[in-house]
Amino acid sequence: MADRPIDVKGRLDAGADALDRLRATAPRVHCLTNMAAANLVANGLLALGAVPSLTDHDEEVGAFTAGAGALSVNLGTPDAERLRAIDIAVAAAKVQGVPWVLDPVMIDRAPTRLRAAAKLVNDGPAVLRLNEGERAALFDSADAPSFDGVLAISGAADSIGHHGAVLRVANGDPMMTRVTGMGCLLGALTGAFLTVERDGLTAALAASVLLGLAGERAAGSARGPGGFQPALLDRLHDLTPDDLMRDAKVTTCAD
Amino acid sequence: MADRPIDVKGRLDAGADALDRLRATAPRVHCLTNMAAANLVANGLLALGAVPSLTDHDEEVGAFTAGAGALSVNLGTPDAERLRAIDIAVAAAKVQGVPWVLDPVMIDRAPTRLRAAAKLVNDGPAVLRLNEGERAALFDSADAPSFDGVLAISGAADSIGHHGAVLRVANGDPMMTRVTGMGCLLGALTGAFLTVERDGLTAALAASVLLGLAGERAAGSARGPGGFQPALLDRLHDLTPDDLMRDAKVTTCAD
Amino acid sequence: MADRPIDVKGRLDAGADALDRLRATAPRVHCLTNMAAANLVANGLLALGAVPSLTDHDEEVGAFTAGAGALSVNLGTPDAERLRAIDIAVAAAKVQGVPWVLDPVMIDRAPTRLRAAAKLVNDGPAVLRLNEGERAALFDSADAPSFDGVLAISGAADSIGHHGAVLRVANGDPMMTRVTGMGCLLGALTGAFLTVERDGLTAALAASVLLGLAGERAAGSARGPGGFQPALLDRLHDLTPDDLMRDAKVTTCAD
Repeated sequence: MADRPIDVKGRLDAGADALDRLRATAPRVHCLTNMAAANLVANGLLALGAVPSLTDHDEEVGAFTAGAGALSVNLGTPDAERLRAIDIAVAAAKVQGVPWVLDPVMIDRAPTRLRAAAKLVNDGPAVLRLNEGERAALFDSADAPSFDGVLAISGAADSIGHHGAVLRVANGDPMMTRVTGMGCLLGALTGAFLTVERDGLTAALAASVLLGLAGERAAGSARGPGGFQPALLDRLHDLTPDDLMRDAKVTTCAD
Repeated sequence: MADRPIDVKGRLDAGADALDRLRATAPRVHCLTNMAAANLVANGLLALGAVPSLTDHDEEVGAFTAGAGALSVNLGTPDAERLRAIDIAVAAAKVQGVPWVLDPVMIDRAPTRLRAAAKLVNDGPAVLRLNEGERAALFDSADAPSFDGVLAISGAADSIGHHGAVLRVANGDPMMTRVTGMGCLLGALTGAFLTVERDGLTAALAASVLLGLAGERAAGSARGPGGFQPALLDRLHDLTPDDLMRDAKVTTCAD
Repeated sequence: MADRPIDVKGRLDAGADALDRLRATAPRVHCLTNMAAANLVANGLLALGAVPSLTDHDEEVGAFTAGAGALSVNLGTPDAERLRAIDIAVAAAKVQGVPWVLDPVMIDRAPTRLRAAAKLVNDGPAVLRLNEGERAALFDSADAPSFDGVLAISGAADSIGHHGAVLRVANGDPMMTRVTGMGCLLGALTGAFLTVERDGLTAALAASVLLGLAGERAAGSARGPGGFQPALLDRLHDLTPDDLMRDAKVTTCAD
């Protein structure tokens, strides 16, 4: 597919504006996430200025999702009840128009998880966040799901694409790969931006830049992966819309 | 209801004495808590000087509760198995005379969770810890449960009341709202004090003052919500009975 | 049983060599662990240089285990689904020759958990990691399970024994008892060493020395149990094979 021209500065301005509105309104993001990442995801949303909720009980997840500003679905450590909860939450999100993000963690390791992910992709998340191995497992096969949303691929640089427009975000630090749940947190932060910015490309861009900036700054002060996590939360809390616009490392590139 | 006179200094003395006994005996508190808060709750109890256990398996939760010094029940992220475990644990606590605390997290967001909470309130926890929104959801309705225990309402200042006596605790810091599980931890610390001090008002008061003091001191040294959490655990570990008596900000007020 | 002579320096050399290979290959360790420890276990493996996976879903745990370099099974907070997952994972480990560690947390507190642990011990873990109370609950009874693997008993000093050879590791710090999941982490780190070193005594020794050293150094810089946890992860990340050989405090002793 040919490149589509894209106004990077305009998107960053919109992302910075979204950050202001997010902090003014403290929207709730419902997260169905894995047990290793739950604490970081909740604290990351709070540090950013949003409010997390995390229930995966099938009797209440519909009400929690319907009242949330966005839904973040993560397939790490799924048990049978959480998989049921995910189906209920996604159905509620579709009925209520709640935007949602899908993070199909480690689908390249288990066929049953890959099938669950493919079905969810067909349900139409606004943003699909994954790494290259997970993308390949989903889409480089004969029965790849169809997907029309924003594809956000995390890596040494993040790639965020939609309808032929592709942005590359070079913010971040290798230390981010030494802390569990960092990708899960990026999915949840993308959800937080979706609560105030319905353009998925802008929301994914803002989340990726902001988390990358927090990582860069935390790496500058932390002496290892242990101190890096609290430092990153401190930076998420402090980063301003001006920081986001000034220090973003974003380029356009071919799809 | 009219004010009932209350000896604040006497209660603080009793709370300080309880802290000494708690550290001398390292009592175990069984916690049925949510997955985002489990780590903080466990580490907070250890920092204070107590021992956490957290199983919610229905076949063993009765034995774990029966042998514990107190039980702390938290309704965050309840799945079907944890809800069954809560019923079994509460039944065991009643049979064995183990004091218990109820923390009905976010019952204002889902009707099924509100009904579960109302039923548990009728089971008679020693202390009911919640915020004002949760209190209103429970009690400002036609079919409010009856409750004769200690009502501990968390907020900018905590309000702790029993039989018309109400104490207001002004210790704490706004940063405490930026870390997930802080209320859950308060419930668990209240449980820890109940193991050595059967007067629920004194136990809830001591837990509220101590956590508030830890928050105040942590906020003085931390640069954001990430560093705040480990700093708060450090302070919980260091605070002395003298600190509790000297720096408590407690007043009596009308019910 | 009589003492069996053991070459401590040779074992430490082998452990140091294993650390090098571990960091060069970043092996995956599948962990079935409790919800309070999951985050520390995952971050500890990442800090060391390994990769964690944690699913306990019965449909996928077999595939995750079969593809892992080692399996770490922890009986803390077991729910019915995780207990099923443990059986499936252990069966997959046996078929595929994946070495595994068992950590029977708090089996001295509930008879059902003790029975589950005894059955798992009969399944033949390479290393059984526990404390003295848990060891006594398992083995000091008429129907003690038979066990031919490495017995690693944590305490003020760790004792690691196999077929009459017993090593005592004096590295560590009392602060390690004030952070939840430290024993669970030791089990997972032992699993990480087993991925590159099939001799269970050497793997358990290397894990025990390394975590003890990380604890000693973290205690030197942290002001309490809150700051201790991130400091310990920082040290796990930094410790070198030379540190392991030079600063290990290991002696042989009677069985």
